[in-house]
Amino acid sequence: MTARNAFYAQSGGVTAVINATACGVIETARAHPERIGTVYAGRHGILGALQEALIDTAGESAETIAALRHTPAGAFGSARYKLKGLEENRAEYERLIDVFRAHDIGYFFYNGGGDSQDTAHKVSQLGEAMGYPIQCIGVPKTVDNDLPVTDTCPGFGSVAKYIAVATREAGLDVASMAETSTKVFILETMGRHAGWIAAASALAREGEGDPPHVILLPEVPLDEQRFLDRVRESVERFGYCVVVVSEGVKTADGQFLADQGTRDAFGHVQLGGVAPTVAAMVKNQLGYKYHYAIADYLQRAARHIASATDVEQAYALGKAAVELAIAGEDAVMPTIVRESDSPYRWHIGRVPLAEVANVEARMPAEYIDESGLFVTESCLRYLRPLIAGEDYPPYRNGLPDYARLAGRMVEKRLPAFGA
Amino acid sequence: MTARNAFYAQSGGVTAVINATACGVIETARAHPERIGTVYAGRHGILGALQEALIDTAGESAETIAALRHTPAGAFGSARYKLKGLEENRAEYERLIDVFRAHDIGYFFYNGGGDSQDTAHKVSQLGEAMGYPIQCIGVPKTVDNDLPVTDTCPGFGSVAKYIAVATREAGLDVASMAETSTKVFILETMGRHAGWIAAASALAREGEGDPPHVILLPEVPLDEQRFLDRVRESVERFGYCVVVVSEGVKTADGQFLADQGTRDAFGHVQLGGVAPTVAAMVKNQLGYKYHYAIADYLQRAARHIASATDVEQAYALGKAAVELAIAGEDAVMPTIVRESDSPYRWHIGRVPLAEVANVEARMPAEYIDESGLFVTESCLRYLRPLIAGEDYPPYRNGLPDYARLAGRMVEKRLPAFGA
Repeated sequence: MTARNAFYAQSGGVTAVINATACGVIETARAHPERIGTVYAGRHGILGALQEALIDTAGESAETIAALRHTPAGAFGSARYKLKGLEENRAEYERLIDVFRAHDIGYFFYNGGGDSQDTAHKVSQLGEAMGYPIQCIGVPKTVDNDLPVTDTCPGFGSVAKYIAVATREAGLDVASMAETSTKVFILETMGRHAGWIAAASALAREGEGDPPHVILLPEVPLDEQRFLDRVRESVERFGYCVVVVSEGVKTADGQFLADQGTRDAFGHVQLGGVAPTVAAMVKNQLGYKYHYAIADYLQRAARHIASATDVEQAYALGKAAVELAIAGEDAVMPTIVRESDSPYRWHIGRVPLAEVANVEARMPAEYIDESGLFVTESCLRYLRPLIAGEDYPPYRNGLPDYARLAGRMVEKRLPAFGA
Repeated sequence: MTARNAFYAQSGGVTAVINATACGVIETARAHPERIGTVYAGRHGILGALQEALIDTAGESAETIAALRHTPAGAFGSARYKLKGLEENRAEYERLIDVFRAHDIGYFFYNGGGDSQDTAHKVSQLGEAMGYPIQCIGVPKTVDNDLPVTDTCPGFGSVAKYIAVATREAGLDVASMAETSTKVFILETMGRHAGWIAAASALAREGEGDPPHVILLPEVPLDEQRFLDRVRESVERFGYCVVVVSEGVKTADGQFLADQGTRDAFGHVQLGGVAPTVAAMVKNQLGYKYHYAIADYLQRAARHIASATDVEQAYALGKAAVELAIAGEDAVMPTIVRESDSPYRWHIGRVPLAEVANVEARMPAEYIDESGLFVTESCLRYLRPLIAGEDYPPYRNGLPDYARLAGRMVEKRLPAFGA
């Protein structure tokens, strides 16, 4: 069996550990030169394949590839680009096959969320239909933790840890100032459709009265009165209140709370910002002094406080993806299979892409408590091991020393797409 | 000479390392039992003295006191409470002396910014006038880095490191997504009157094209056209633009940019939020997709990524404060004296409180470049050593294990104030 090349691409929103997966893919591929020639990485994800913009990872030293393990964001560039259905835009899929053929690419590793698994699945089907042999392996990634089958998604554990740490630290700050200053602190987290990230803030609580005091989840339509009652109760009992709110929280009529029509001085609608909306509620109805933080990209890029468990799993899934390919598998995705919560034990499993593509995993109802304003112990049991362990990057001059790629491009062999 | 007790209070906004100073004060006092009896800490800062709400630190184990070194925020509670002038409210000052007398307090350590140094100075003067012997030592603290004489203020180095790390990490995120998604990222930092914190983001830049690309400082009135030109130039040359903006940025007519009259759906003025204002400018004038983060308390509470230099200096200043008191000094503040930038060398100095009280240190003009949109190399030379080194807290269950005080209160001996 002769070696064939591999194509690797990062897709969608990046994370603190997606490069650890890339590291697992490339290091494992390099360990099997008899089966895998060169790993070409798509510049800006799947666009790199469409545009034949391929980064030659053979041009990167072993040290640089190893450093990807501790480097956040997408080192090769990611893309928010969803291929249309096969029937709507067959040309795009055929272009992918053309590029793969031109560079003797026999393995396609697609590192992303639900959409990406769907794309990997379609490419596998098309390769077969076009008589071009290609093995397509999906590799999970998403801070939203919304892929089915796998116990968790790389990227989530680190953002969960970041939010839990931030909640504990800012909570101490507010507790120490509340007597004469801010009484209500609001932390806005990512999570447009699922409350996993906001829920992780609950890990900061050790005993009664500890922050967070309220968690607002997209799964629970906001009951403004119930929420305000809880805030008042917290301030009266503990002197302050820490609220963690997911960006995806909705009103009872199904609208995003962040889209409540805030306007600037020129009358322009201000986009986003569920935190200021919640803050205004607190201020106007209860009169408490507030502050809010919007963590935004800081939370998903925070490699400096990544979960060691998350980093390990991210790498292991990249490695497993290559091993599945070498074992002859196609149209599958490696997964995390949990064996036990405590002690935490897990192993790598696999699932056919057909079972993953476009299926969204929601937070189970039993993870949300009766008030709808906090999570349950079973949720905490699930979350705890995911943030375990620290995995600090190396530092230089007081700052994390992240990888910089040489980024050598592969010479193009085809005309431009659409030209 | 018999031992007398000490009073220690935290004042104003808390930091990642003010408890490290408390640790230095208490550990050093404990090492000199022949001179210092018990350290009483004010619950909620100076309010604790006015209300005779004194925390008996003798009730805390050596382990708990040692753990303060790695615990953020104000463990004894801080307060935003400025004593009025002596002539306006002499009763408050006399109450302080009464409480000190009732508990045989001969040392007053006041840990705060310019206002607090002023208060410590006045208490010293009043003690003398009232014939009550008390040595008043100011201990510097402020994330704003705006105390005069001292080279830097504990708390600043850690928030500087946080902002530089966040800028580097979020910058990598935006760089990897910009091809198909967010092109402009805005990070709002603290700094109502001085741009030190926003300036520290510049430490993230290693080479041309690295983020941050623009820094907006309170010292430079916003020139909207010049700013937008720089943003467009950055997006065109590098594909994206990272803007770091201080909350205190003002318009040419001297108004805070954050007070531009944003209103919510109910017509209420929305407070704060310079980031969304800048974002709206970018969106409306240039049309770029943006995201913004507001770090708020996360930045000053982030003990998990504290600067080792900052922690060391915070502790050393607490220790020095006690040593100054033991040496018989009064109405002074220990300072950081820089000997050289690189290698960074410093020692502890001292300054009379009269020279510190109510004097605000601004960023020197030569630290801001000609465009007004970035800092100079001399600014970076000043900043670099302040973020050097990591000083990680211990972790338990994936989260920083911060100190929890027993918080035993001293029995009151006086009637309530004002009763």
